[in-house]
Amino acid sequence: MLKDQQYLRIPGPTPVPPSVQRAMAQPMVGHRASETAELIRRIRPGLKKVFGTEQDVMIFAGSGTSGLEAAVVNTVGEGDEVIVAVTGAFGRRFVKILDAYGVTVHEIETEWGQSVSPEEIRGALRKNPETKAVFATFCETSTGVLNPVAELAQAVRDESDALFIVDGVSCIGGVESKMDEWGIDILVTGSQKAMMLPGGLMFAACSDRAWKVIEENTRRGFYLDFTKYRDNLKKDSTPFTPATSLLYGLEQAIRLIEEEGFGEVISRHELMKDMTRAAFKALGIPLLANDEDASPTVTAVRPDGFDAAKLRKVLKEEFNLIVAGGQEHLKDAIFRIGHMGYASPGDVLQTLAMIEIGIRKAGQEIELGKGVAAAQQIYLGKGDPQ
Amino acid sequence: MLKDQQYLRIPGPTPVPPSVQRAMAQPMVGHRASETAELIRRIRPGLKKVFGTEQDVMIFAGSGTSGLEAAVVNTVGEGDEVIVAVTGAFGRRFVKILDAYGVTVHEIETEWGQSVSPEEIRGALRKNPETKAVFATFCETSTGVLNPVAELAQAVRDESDALFIVDGVSCIGGVESKMDEWGIDILVTGSQKAMMLPGGLMFAACSDRAWKVIEENTRRGFYLDFTKYRDNLKKDSTPFTPATSLLYGLEQAIRLIEEEGFGEVISRHELMKDMTRAAFKALGIPLLANDEDASPTVTAVRPDGFDAAKLRKVLKEEFNLIVAGGQEHLKDAIFRIGHMGYASPGDVLQTLAMIEIGIRKAGQEIELGKGVAAAQQIYLGKGDPQ
Repeated sequence: MLKDQQYLRIPGPTPVPPSVQRAMAQPMVGHRASETAELIRRIRPGLKKVFGTEQDVMIFAGSGTSGLEAAVVNTVGEGDEVIVAVTGAFGRRFVKILDAYGVTVHEIETEWGQSVSPEEIRGALRKNPETKAVFATFCETSTGVLNPVAELAQAVRDESDALFIVDGVSCIGGVESKMDEWGIDILVTGSQKAMMLPGGLMFAACSDRAWKVIEENTRRGFYLDFTKYRDNLKKDSTPFTPATSLLYGLEQAIRLIEEEGFGEVISRHELMKDMTRAAFKALGIPLLANDEDASPTVTAVRPDGFDAAKLRKVLKEEFNLIVAGGQEHLKDAIFRIGHMGYASPGDVLQTLAMIEIGIRKAGQEIELGKGVAAAQQIYLGKGDPQ
Repeated sequence: MLKDQQYLRIPGPTPVPPSVQRAMAQPMVGHRASETAELIRRIRPGLKKVFGTEQDVMIFAGSGTSGLEAAVVNTVGEGDEVIVAVTGAFGRRFVKILDAYGVTVHEIETEWGQSVSPEEIRGALRKNPETKAVFATFCETSTGVLNPVAELAQAVRDESDALFIVDGVSCIGGVESKMDEWGIDILVTGSQKAMMLPGGLMFAACSDRAWKVIEENTRRGFYLDFTKYRDNLKKDSTPFTPATSLLYGLEQAIRLIEEEGFGEVISRHELMKDMTRAAFKALGIPLLANDEDASPTVTAVRPDGFDAAKLRKVLKEEFNLIVAGGQEHLKDAIFRIGHMGYASPGDVLQTLAMIEIGIRKAGQEIELGKGVAAAQQIYLGKGDPQ
C-alpha cells in the first residue's frame, strides 16, 4: 500500500485543510503581543455566526471535555439538582463530571441510537421541580444521533427556570445552530470536529440568564472560570496562555467557512449525510439511527451480515481508510463514519466505494457499486423537492 | 463548494505526499555545505533502482524539457541524422529541440493513441543507415500510450550502432524500467509525475556507450553538459546551485517508494490503470489507446456521447476535480486522467465516482455506479490469474 496516505473518516479528529495547516505554521508570537490581540479581534465575529449568538464566544486551550466540565463547574455545585439527557457515551460523560462535583443527577436515558424527546424533558422537569440545569448533547458522537435541541430548549423554558446547557462538540460548525433564538444557555464545542482544526481549542458561549447564575456561583474553579475568559476577551485577550498556532488555524478555518458561506456548509453536511444513508439503505445494511434522528456529521451503521470490527480491519489494511467502531456496549456492533468539516461529497463517494470493497472482503455478498450509485443519485437530485 | 480542496488528477504535476511536503520545509542549508553532500549521497542509490541502472543518475535543477534538450545537446549536433518516434506531443517536442540545433530528423509518426512498433524502428534504421541516435517517448503523456521501449531498444541494437534515447518523464517511478538490461543509452525524467514531487528536478542517466559519444562531442552546451554533472556527482555535489528543498523532498519520496517496495509501486500503477479502463469499458465510453498500448500512469478517454470539455468544466465546478484535456488536434476530443505517484486505488474509485456524476451532468445517460463497480471488481480480483 502507498505509505503516507490515510483517509481519516472518524467522527473527529477530522482532516485539517491545507490552508489551515499553513496558517498554523506561522512562527510564534508573544501571547501578550499586539499580534495576538489583533488575531483574537479578527476571530471573534466569525465564531458568533457559527454558534448563532450575539454573545461573545470564549476560547480556551482545552479539549471538548474541558468544555463539558466548564459548563458544570460554572453553574452548579454540590447538592444542586440537574437533569441529564443521556443518549449515548457523551451524555454519560456529563453525568460522570456532575458526579465528580457531587451534583444530584436525574437521568433521562434513551436507547442508544435514539434521540431524547421534548416530552421526556417536560416530564423530568415536572417530576424534579428543583432542577437548576438541564444538560443535553447536540450530536451524540457515539451513535450519530442529532438531538432536537431547539425543541428541547423550548421544553425547558416552558416548564422551568432551569438553564439549558448543550454539548455541541461533534456538530457545531457543520449544522445550523441558533443559540440565542432557540434559548440555549450555555453552548460548548471543540476544535477537532466540524471546525476543521486539530484538537486543543474549546469554545463556549453563555446567555445573559446563564451569566447571572455564573456570577452568583462562588465556586467556579480556576482555569475554567468563564468570567475570567469573558473579561479578558473584551480586551481581545485570554486569562491564561493561549494555543497560539491553533488560533492562527482557527482564523483560517473561519475564513474557509465564510468563503463557502455558512448556509452552504450546512447544506453540504446534510448532503453528505443523505448520500451516506442512501448508500447503506440501497445495500440493505441497517443504520443505527432513523432518518429523523440522524446527524449530518456522523453516521453509525449496524451491520447484520458481516462483522463491523472485521470491516474496519480490512479497510485499514487495504486502503488506510479509518472509520470508527462503536463505544461501550456497541463497541463491535456498529461502525461510524465521520463526514464533517473538511470533507466533501466526493470524499463520501470515495469512502462508500472503499467500504463496498471492504464489505465484500468482510464476507457479505453485496452488489458492488449499488451504494455508490444511490449516493450519486442523491447528489444529482440535491436541491430537488423531496 | 468546500474551498481549499482540489482533486488533482492530471498527468502531472501530481499531488505531493504530506511527508514530502514536510521534508521540503527543511530550513535552507548551504549548497556547498556537508549537509548537502550527505543528502546527495543518501539519494544516489535510490534513483538507480527506479531507473534500473548501475550508472549514476544525475540530478539537475530543470524541467522535463531540459532533460530532452540535455539528451540532444550532449549527443548530436548540426548535420547529424537521427530518428524520432513521434507518438504524440512529447515525441513532437524532441523534433522541435532537434530542429533548434539543426539536426536532421527522420520521423516515424503514428496515429495519436497508438504506440510505435519495433518493426517501424527497424525499417527506419534500414532506410537511414547514418542514424546516430533514435529518440523515443516511454509514456506519451498526450495520449496515455506506453511505448514498448524494451523491444524498441532491441530493434535499435539489432539494426545499428545508434544510441537509443528515451524520454521517461511521465512514467519513471511508476513503471518497470530496466535501463541497463533493455539497452537504453540515455534515460531522462522529471520530478513532478510518478516521482511525487513538485516540478523543478530533472534526472538523467547514460550508458557507457552514451558516455563515449558524449565525451567525443565537443559542443555539449554549458548548463546541461552531462559530464559536469557526472564529475560533480562522484563527489556528491552538483556543478551549479541545486534546488535544495526539492532534494530533501526527493530523499523522502525515494523513502516512500522503498517502504512500499518498488515492485508494489509498479503493481499499484498497473491496478489503477486496469481499474480506470474497466470503468470506462463498463460504461461504454471509448478509450483512446488499446489495452496493449495503455500506460499505467495516465488514461486518455475519447467520449462519443458527451463533450469532453463540458465534462472537465462540470468536474471542476462540482468537485474541484481536475482532469486534463487533450493536446493539439485532440484538445477537446479527449480527456486524460492521471493516476500516478501519490495516488491510490481508493483515489481511482473516487475519481470514477465523481466522473460518473460529471458525465450525467454533461448529458450522457449512463447507469450510475456501473463504472465504479467494474473498478471495484478489478480491485477484488487483483492478483488473480487473468
